[in-house]
Amino acid sequence: MSFIRINVKRQASNVKRKDNMKPKSIKVGILGCGTVGAGVVRCLLENNSHIERHIGARIEIKKISDLYPKIKRDVKIPSGLMTKNSDSVINDPEIDIIIELIGGTTISKKLIIDAMNNGKHVVTANKALLAVAGKELHKIARKNNVGLFYEASVAGGIPIIKALREGFTANKINSLFGIVNGTCNYIFCRMFESNLSFDRALEEAMEKGYAEADPTLDIEGIDSKHKIGIAASLAFGQWIPQKSIYVEGITKITDVDVKSAMEMGYKIKLLAIAKFEDEKIEVRVHPTLIPESSLLSSVNGVFNAVEVDGFPIGKTMFYGQGAGMHATASAVVADIVDIARNILHDSPQRLQTFSFGKKAIPVKKIADIETRYFIRCTVLDRPSVIAHISAELGKRNISISSVIQHEEKTEEDFSIIIFMTHTSRERDVQSAIKAITKLPEVKEKPAVIRVEA
Amino acid sequence: MSFIRINVKRQASNVKRKDNMKPKSIKVGILGCGTVGAGVVRCLLENNSHIERHIGARIEIKKISDLYPKIKRDVKIPSGLMTKNSDSVINDPEIDIIIELIGGTTISKKLIIDAMNNGKHVVTANKALLAVAGKELHKIARKNNVGLFYEASVAGGIPIIKALREGFTANKINSLFGIVNGTCNYIFCRMFESNLSFDRALEEAMEKGYAEADPTLDIEGIDSKHKIGIAASLAFGQWIPQKSIYVEGITKITDVDVKSAMEMGYKIKLLAIAKFEDEKIEVRVHPTLIPESSLLSSVNGVFNAVEVDGFPIGKTMFYGQGAGMHATASAVVADIVDIARNILHDSPQRLQTFSFGKKAIPVKKIADIETRYFIRCTVLDRPSVIAHISAELGKRNISISSVIQHEEKTEEDFSIIIFMTHTSRERDVQSAIKAITKLPEVKEKPAVIRVEA
Repeated sequence: MSFIRINVKRQASNVKRKDNMKPKSIKVGILGCGTVGAGVVRCLLENNSHIERHIGARIEIKKISDLYPKIKRDVKIPSGLMTKNSDSVINDPEIDIIIELIGGTTISKKLIIDAMNNGKHVVTANKALLAVAGKELHKIARKNNVGLFYEASVAGGIPIIKALREGFTANKINSLFGIVNGTCNYIFCRMFESNLSFDRALEEAMEKGYAEADPTLDIEGIDSKHKIGIAASLAFGQWIPQKSIYVEGITKITDVDVKSAMEMGYKIKLLAIAKFEDEKIEVRVHPTLIPESSLLSSVNGVFNAVEVDGFPIGKTMFYGQGAGMHATASAVVADIVDIARNILHDSPQRLQTFSFGKKAIPVKKIADIETRYFIRCTVLDRPSVIAHISAELGKRNISISSVIQHEEKTEEDFSIIIFMTHTSRERDVQSAIKAITKLPEVKEKPAVIRVEA
Repeated sequence: MSFIRINVKRQASNVKRKDNMKPKSIKVGILGCGTVGAGVVRCLLENNSHIERHIGARIEIKKISDLYPKIKRDVKIPSGLMTKNSDSVINDPEIDIIIELIGGTTISKKLIIDAMNNGKHVVTANKALLAVAGKELHKIARKNNVGLFYEASVAGGIPIIKALREGFTANKINSLFGIVNGTCNYIFCRMFESNLSFDRALEEAMEKGYAEADPTLDIEGIDSKHKIGIAASLAFGQWIPQKSIYVEGITKITDVDVKSAMEMGYKIKLLAIAKFEDEKIEVRVHPTLIPESSLLSSVNGVFNAVEVDGFPIGKTMFYGQGAGMHATASAVVADIVDIARNILHDSPQRLQTFSFGKKAIPVKKIADIETRYFIRCTVLDRPSVIAHISAELGKRNISISSVIQHEEKTEEDFSIIIFMTHTSRERDVQSAIKAITKLPEVKEKPAVIRVEA
């Protein structure tokens, strides 16, 4: 019985292809119609004839589910599409592609899995879900011979996912550096431009709608961690577990750090970093000094950028809007178009991306990474202090590239000394920091910011 | 007879797909093995297991043709691959993909067409050929149901062709701004950084190997014209004839222009511009003032960048190496991988790109464009001169946004006055320039540089 059905289907598809009778429309169902959903609907309605011209078929919205069908949206939803019942969307036999824009990691996960098990292709913008369940979802997609696409999950206005899955396949990726959180980038830019404190810059970001009411996910680096997890997984061909990604937020960066960085020709950015070195992977998110002369340091405001260094391509950078209704909608619709092409050409699993089962490349612990360091010490102004701190660094093979001490003092009459190191090992630096903290002239645990050239 | 053969082929291919017996290797033949060819061979040899991991098949070099099989190359060519006979490559029945790296527009064209008529997919880096024969080649590709790929033809290290053919399909492209010629960008950077004259900067570019012995194609903008022609064709879905692209080289830009631009907060770049406005296309290449605060203006040295503005994606920019052995090889191999995926998934014409036969969108004449202008006048220092020039501009509805006149004089005791205009029509500006040239206080035809914000 099952055998016969498969045969019939194949034949039908062959007939279609031989006679060049391609399907005239691809039908999509949308789960969740908030800001991004409205953007997707608008893009599909406005640009449909343009898309049809490129791919030779129409994209048709068949159903949209949302808990609040009647709220005011930035687009007029054509009548008859809205439903509260998401199951009716994923079970509609005519729908080819499901667009998941609900967010979260529970209901959305179940719906995506059910949809794929129903033979639907899936597009999702859900970075939190992919970061934790990407491997599982890819396996289910493969089992069902359907596509799983998620361009919008990392830096919407930047087609980095497609580049990593396709454009850079020929390359061995050495490193990815991403500014992938607009909120943090906006905060740092304001701290640099106008000497705002972190708190004031965050307040301003909230006033302008660039930060959520609860900005924790952004400023603690969790959002960036999700995104670099996905990007690094694609770059290195194995799904990187979130727990192996080191993360540090931006809340401890002070105006002294900003000023000192500027003096030394650096800016501070929340960088999401992935590297492949010595047959090991490292993935980390933390505030980072980068040279002012670098193109990444010119990425201002809420914009995102991802720099990829690979062989043979060399250094390349993508820049664009990371979030927002339109940039995200563009990414979602790009995925819809990609899947539509795969449907039209009967190649649903054109992108395999992962080779599960092969031996995984080990991921470094943060203690094992090597980079340069900016160390800010708050000290009593005694003649011996630089010598004592330098001695602790020297003992651990940490060599100093420059030192700055200003004449001005803190309110409590402490001095601030900044040490920049040459490339050192994290483990050694943390050990030195412990020892330096215990020195009698040192007021508190020194602040450490990693540096990337 | 032909019917039977087609049927047999289809069946075989179905069997393959049903049993998941994908071909184990895709065979490529390379025409022309100079610097780029050596880079492609090296990338295919070094990264093959990496590529296999991603796509599930090996890429195998079957034959390489070159007029000089024995010259020293940057890679050891495996024995038995080299031949002088390019026909033996395009006629080899085992070869799936032909890589054309010969250049020029005669032999290369014939070989590409013959290869496609033989059922081979084609990858080429040949911008000059595509610029003039892109439409014809696409038609032949479609007729033969093969892929035609050319990522390396525009800014090798930047996957802009793929983005335009796929990633941005959902978007209506409003504009493309490209810095796509490394030689010109290097020259302008040196003029800005170190106050070099154009001639000295060109000399330096030649010394460093960034300019050819005959730099005409680069400095006269022809190379950029080829590239923007290809990119604009993909952006707007119709092949743009080279003759409808306005081009102006960089040789007339003086150090006074550079200094004045800097004072006003601008840099000068050779921009390749394509726009879609008022249901018309405009495509042009010329030296252009762009604000120093723009990201494009930070693209230094021989690097390339392309900024795309579309709906819904907004502004996005790609940055990378435009030329050189490795960046170009990366683009060529990315295309090979794309075609390999299409072969493996039996979707050879997945990207149609063009809908020939539809009504073409008209391309504007240069006289009809509207932009801002920088006008440099060399004049006798008489009280009336600004008034007279302003009057000629005003008569033609050209409104002035700023004027700079320095106290210092030229060697022949002339003054230099720079006018910056608001948005004006090219036709009016050219008419004003004619009239201004005739004014008795004006020494020579004023220099005009267009401005883009």
